[in-house]
Amino acid sequence: MRMVDLIEKKKDGFKHTPEEIHFIVAGYTKGDIPDYQMSAWLMAVCFQGLDKEETAILTKEMMHSGDVIDLSRIQGIKVDKHSTGGVGDKTSLVLGPIVAACGVPVAKMSGRGLGHTGGTLDKLESIPGLHIMIDEEDFVKQVNDCGLAIIGQSGHLDPADKKMYALRDVTATVSCIPLIASSIMSKKLAAGSDAILLDVKYGDGAFMNTIEEAKELARTMIEIGDSLGKDTRATISNMSQPLGYAIGNSLEVKEAIDTLNGHGPEDLLELCLQAGSHMLIQAQKADSLLSARKMLQEAIDSKQALRTFCAMVKAQGGDDAYVRHPEMFPKAKEVIPVYSQTTGYVKDLKAKPLGIVSMKLGGGRETTDDEIDYSVGLILHKKIGDFVKKGDVLVEVHTNTGLSKELQKDILDAYEFSNEFVNKPILIDEVLS
Amino acid sequence: MRMVDLIEKKKDGFKHTPEEIHFIVAGYTKGDIPDYQMSAWLMAVCFQGLDKEETAILTKEMMHSGDVIDLSRIQGIKVDKHSTGGVGDKTSLVLGPIVAACGVPVAKMSGRGLGHTGGTLDKLESIPGLHIMIDEEDFVKQVNDCGLAIIGQSGHLDPADKKMYALRDVTATVSCIPLIASSIMSKKLAAGSDAILLDVKYGDGAFMNTIEEAKELARTMIEIGDSLGKDTRATISNMSQPLGYAIGNSLEVKEAIDTLNGHGPEDLLELCLQAGSHMLIQAQKADSLLSARKMLQEAIDSKQALRTFCAMVKAQGGDDAYVRHPEMFPKAKEVIPVYSQTTGYVKDLKAKPLGIVSMKLGGGRETTDDEIDYSVGLILHKKIGDFVKKGDVLVEVHTNTGLSKELQKDILDAYEFSNEFVNKPILIDEVLS
Repeated sequence: MRMVDLIEKKKDGFKHTPEEIHFIVAGYTKGDIPDYQMSAWLMAVCFQGLDKEETAILTKEMMHSGDVIDLSRIQGIKVDKHSTGGVGDKTSLVLGPIVAACGVPVAKMSGRGLGHTGGTLDKLESIPGLHIMIDEEDFVKQVNDCGLAIIGQSGHLDPADKKMYALRDVTATVSCIPLIASSIMSKKLAAGSDAILLDVKYGDGAFMNTIEEAKELARTMIEIGDSLGKDTRATISNMSQPLGYAIGNSLEVKEAIDTLNGHGPEDLLELCLQAGSHMLIQAQKADSLLSARKMLQEAIDSKQALRTFCAMVKAQGGDDAYVRHPEMFPKAKEVIPVYSQTTGYVKDLKAKPLGIVSMKLGGGRETTDDEIDYSVGLILHKKIGDFVKKGDVLVEVHTNTGLSKELQKDILDAYEFSNEFVNKPILIDEVLS
Repeated sequence: MRMVDLIEKKKDGFKHTPEEIHFIVAGYTKGDIPDYQMSAWLMAVCFQGLDKEETAILTKEMMHSGDVIDLSRIQGIKVDKHSTGGVGDKTSLVLGPIVAACGVPVAKMSGRGLGHTGGTLDKLESIPGLHIMIDEEDFVKQVNDCGLAIIGQSGHLDPADKKMYALRDVTATVSCIPLIASSIMSKKLAAGSDAILLDVKYGDGAFMNTIEEAKELARTMIEIGDSLGKDTRATISNMSQPLGYAIGNSLEVKEAIDTLNGHGPEDLLELCLQAGSHMLIQAQKADSLLSARKMLQEAIDSKQALRTFCAMVKAQGGDDAYVRHPEMFPKAKEVIPVYSQTTGYVKDLKAKPLGIVSMKLGGGRETTDDEIDYSVGLILHKKIGDFVKKGDVLVEVHTNTGLSKELQKDILDAYEFSNEFVNKPILIDEVLS
């Protein structure tokens, strides 16, 4: 088999055999297939696509390119959750504890942030002492002990995806549904859980621009899960504006803690309750969405979810005093308000430019080597549907490096106003399974 | 400017600016743009195309990526000829001498063969002593002295094309009209002639499968020539079967010499007379196709063309006794006839498999490092339209390594027969300018 023939085959719109996909993934992971052939193949895939069967086989081959975590030593049905990411998305920090508090073991591997999107691991690391590199043995033990662990990927998990993703990033082959789907699902499947809940976001701050694309991506991932025998569901949620009010690492952790304390932002809480309800059903801990939702609400009200989060933080070496007293988190030197220059209803609030402002303040990474300043970020005071008077504070900027005119303008430009009343956006449009 | 953004732009179907194309070609030639980005861009170009302007600019950038030959020291209008190549195509060996004999200076740079297609340089090197690496000074002098030189490309001619072609070859991005057109034209333009005659072949043994594709390629190249101020014409010719009867290096040289002696195969002579007529008009040596054709025929009849070829061979260090006495060429050990197993009219004769048989006998290269056995090859006894009786010789195989059952079968399979009368194929379908 020659890679050049397989590139030609895909370029001409033909379907690959399982053997051919194995040849491509194994060959590329080992280094037998050079980057320049892989990138040509990936580009051909962007144009010609991969069908259901090809996508499932690609996912399986990627999943088996490295270690597959064995979670069988953890009792119960392990449900993993994956969000396609966005700005201000601290869902995992809330959802993990509330679901775990309801008796569903949560053994989660998360990622770091890049560009305008934040990463759960970076947010967690803003808690002093907490570490995220834990070996498999301790990972299993921690989940058995306190029901919850959120850690970094091991070095040997899905090396095919690592290599392919890095190549896609520099060859404009990221935005391709079968490639996104196989990348996400191969990592989730290698992480060993029994069922998967996906939160597929669309809108300005998200991977997918439109709801149609988000649904297509969700359906593709559900088909992969089904074909590999893993119960997979997906919420399709609107990411037209940031989730919650906080953007930036410790600011988001504090907002998650607020939510676990019962006074978080409405949209974040709602998303967590809806997604969590599905996870409880997938884990066979509830038999209806209504009873599941009640269990989750009770886990918050009783502080059981907060205690679970504390237990996790402690188990991973973090100081749980910060969770109980979030005012302990180091604060940025300055908090600079940005005032509205308009009166009206907020009609649109673009997540991506706000994510980029937070990154430029030091709260995110432009390249993977950049260090993160945990204390900086943005607190939104106004979101879509809010009425704003000229001179009202739109955003509070937490910064250690002042606020340039350009960044201030970027923040103002993220807002769009209307003279007419604007409804708050629907958060979850659909649930697919 | 970032290459990843330019890949994305082309992937999304947008048009590049001249600055962007300069960035891509110069960056890739210098090594600033890695192969894996270039191959992704090339694949995107295969799907989204390049328009007339982009293709002309790409060609100009490639042409200027290295040396541009200065032929101004050669008197007269220099007309270069390029064939898109095929099996048994020894046109340059006939056309060069007959056109030069009519007073048109022919300063030609040719290529080597690869795969099923032969190369003019390899054929020439079957003449003992002849060398094809000549510096620019001597090249100009030779054309001024004897009117004709056919040499190899200098190392610094169109390095962008060398690098891009090598990459396209292993990434399934060869068959793409704007890329083929810019590759051919950038080399021709860098080679410095004033006018270009293209012979674009279609059919089984050629680059382009259909006449429509051949015409599109021809039109694209003519547009490039026009936009860069070079008179460019193209013959569209049928390559459904090999040209002439000989396939293999010294066998083809002998057939070219036969043609210069006035007794070559009809199709080869006709192609050379038609193409040559256009070249004479381009060089302003004739004012009608009819008078041009008469001049060319006279150059053959008077043996002036043969003498011109001898002069070139001598000037390039070759032994011109071989031209005057072609029976001196070393012969293959064995000549094995392949007999027809059918009676009927030859309906189809596939050039490509015959080219591959010749290559496997040692007459061509599977990879660029392979050495060539000049004496081996095939002499066809029957071509399309010929009536064949079972037991007639179809092909004479000149070999130093016997003839395997597989190769014999490949030869037989290249022939297709019909019980009904079959017309000889039209050779030149059209001339575009």
